[in-house]
Amino acid sequence: MFADNPLCKVLGIQYPIIQGALAWISDGPFAAAVSNSGALGVIGPGMRPASEIIEEIEKARALTDKPFGVNVVLWPEQMEAHLKALFDAKVEIITTAISDPGNIIEMAHEHGALMLCLVGSVRHAQRLVAEGADVVIACSNEAGGHTGEIGGMVLVPAIADAVKVPVVASGGIADARGFAAALALGASGVQVGTRFVASKECPCHDNIKQAILHATEEDTLMTDHLSGSPMRGLRNRLLEEWARKEATATKQERRQHFKGRYKAAVYEGDTEMGSIPAGQVVGRIREIKSVNEIITDLVSGLEPVLDRLQRELS
Amino acid sequence: MFADNPLCKVLGIQYPIIQGALAWISDGPFAAAVSNSGALGVIGPGMRPASEIIEEIEKARALTDKPFGVNVVLWPEQMEAHLKALFDAKVEIITTAISDPGNIIEMAHEHGALMLCLVGSVRHAQRLVAEGADVVIACSNEAGGHTGEIGGMVLVPAIADAVKVPVVASGGIADARGFAAALALGASGVQVGTRFVASKECPCHDNIKQAILHATEEDTLMTDHLSGSPMRGLRNRLLEEWARKEATATKQERRQHFKGRYKAAVYEGDTEMGSIPAGQVVGRIREIKSVNEIITDLVSGLEPVLDRLQRELS
Repeated sequence: MFADNPLCKVLGIQYPIIQGALAWISDGPFAAAVSNSGALGVIGPGMRPASEIIEEIEKARALTDKPFGVNVVLWPEQMEAHLKALFDAKVEIITTAISDPGNIIEMAHEHGALMLCLVGSVRHAQRLVAEGADVVIACSNEAGGHTGEIGGMVLVPAIADAVKVPVVASGGIADARGFAAALALGASGVQVGTRFVASKECPCHDNIKQAILHATEEDTLMTDHLSGSPMRGLRNRLLEEWARKEATATKQERRQHFKGRYKAAVYEGDTEMGSIPAGQVVGRIREIKSVNEIITDLVSGLEPVLDRLQRELS
Repeated sequence: MFADNPLCKVLGIQYPIIQGALAWISDGPFAAAVSNSGALGVIGPGMRPASEIIEEIEKARALTDKPFGVNVVLWPEQMEAHLKALFDAKVEIITTAISDPGNIIEMAHEHGALMLCLVGSVRHAQRLVAEGADVVIACSNEAGGHTGEIGGMVLVPAIADAVKVPVVASGGIADARGFAAALALGASGVQVGTRFVASKECPCHDNIKQAILHATEEDTLMTDHLSGSPMRGLRNRLLEEWARKEATATKQERRQHFKGRYKAAVYEGDTEMGSIPAGQVVGRIREIKSVNEIITDLVSGLEPVLDRLQRELS
């Protein structure tokens, strides 16, 4: 399986599945659990101090000999310290959010790391590939967290046609049907985020997992959130109140509205006034599973999907 | 091929492909050309007088003995006269836009017609199936014209799991990769709209076809448009000006802004101040083809996509 898959080859993994970085919650042990199941685990440090990032990397290395990645948040405040930590620790795979990593790609290459960059349009993908991105992750409007405007049915084939590096589909994928669809659209693999939040191993508050299980596909909202960039999260009082005022709010009001709200969600379980990044795929997640079950389902479900397609064509 | 496909069976067509109704432009000869190529052509009367609808139905019948459908616009003003025309003409397949057809489903059944209803969420699909819809068309955020908020990667499998009638994926589909992806996601077939506008036979102004060929996937805009419901169209001066004022505009201003703008586009070729419904898939349309070529490409391209998927799994 996936013997000639370009994403598996470049990353040295068994299945072309990347776990989307979950800021503050996909820690070292979590990423190691994903990598041990044959996918690529990714540590999501959020804005932790650099010393803690190194601890998480060490924990992951103690638990797996498989490749894993680390996400870098492209906010100027801590970026330099984070990058130094990653380079010192000789991290081999770095992922970035949907933004412009600028000269980080070159720096990463000088330190022997691969750069996997999230993009939201063909233009964006072409620019980052020209700057050296090793893999582009096509982040569609369905996705949770910071994302773009273009739906996966269009974005994935458009980017697959436009660049030569492996393209990963991100957004709306929680099971083998989405995985198969992404491959059909021309992706080499998938990035899965929200589905992994509702996993046994995910170290976030149980209220968040329960909120995901009970949400429908209509229960997310896209706002400009804390960063000023479009972000999709579970629809709750925090986001609805913000949606009503974001057009006229000042930076100061924005900062005030979201201050501490992400940690209030993921650590304290505040589902009403906490910020819960989540994709529209919440509507298709009905059960908490182990990381290994999620990955096994994604992979073992491909064959029945293909059998059905073959029957249509025969 | 498609020997057991439930959509082909219920509609009596060769390929599970529906041509999305193009208001005022998919006339009788156009729908007949689509049906003669093995898909389902659909007449899009827009707000034409009922007598003209009957003429288009007669033209289609003179040109094909294959099934075709007629779209009903659910605006109170002409709906009754339109429905009477359809029932008098014994139209066998009726499609509706993304809205609530109410007791039209029952009336259509009394007159021996099948109802194919566009829906934007699981809730919406379940309600219309309970009311008797024979087929639901899952209209994703990617789509052109009036559409919903949910991306196809999520909407299609969610609706396929929730209802027992055939589900058609609509939004973002222009070629065999999208077709295969829709089938993988659990759809029985696809609805294709924007791709057919850029066809040789489409009787709209050539400027519109050229605008589609030159647009990228970022060149559409969703506004509340004339109807007050979300509608995606080609980004131009008309929509950009409206986007800036829609939040505070009165009904009167809305009517004024869009008055005659649709016909100005499709008949006179005004690409700046005309209203051009179009999906994000414009970014993947680079060539004007005949209706028959479009349908042949959709179908004959499936085999290579499946071969690629099989190679991944072997």
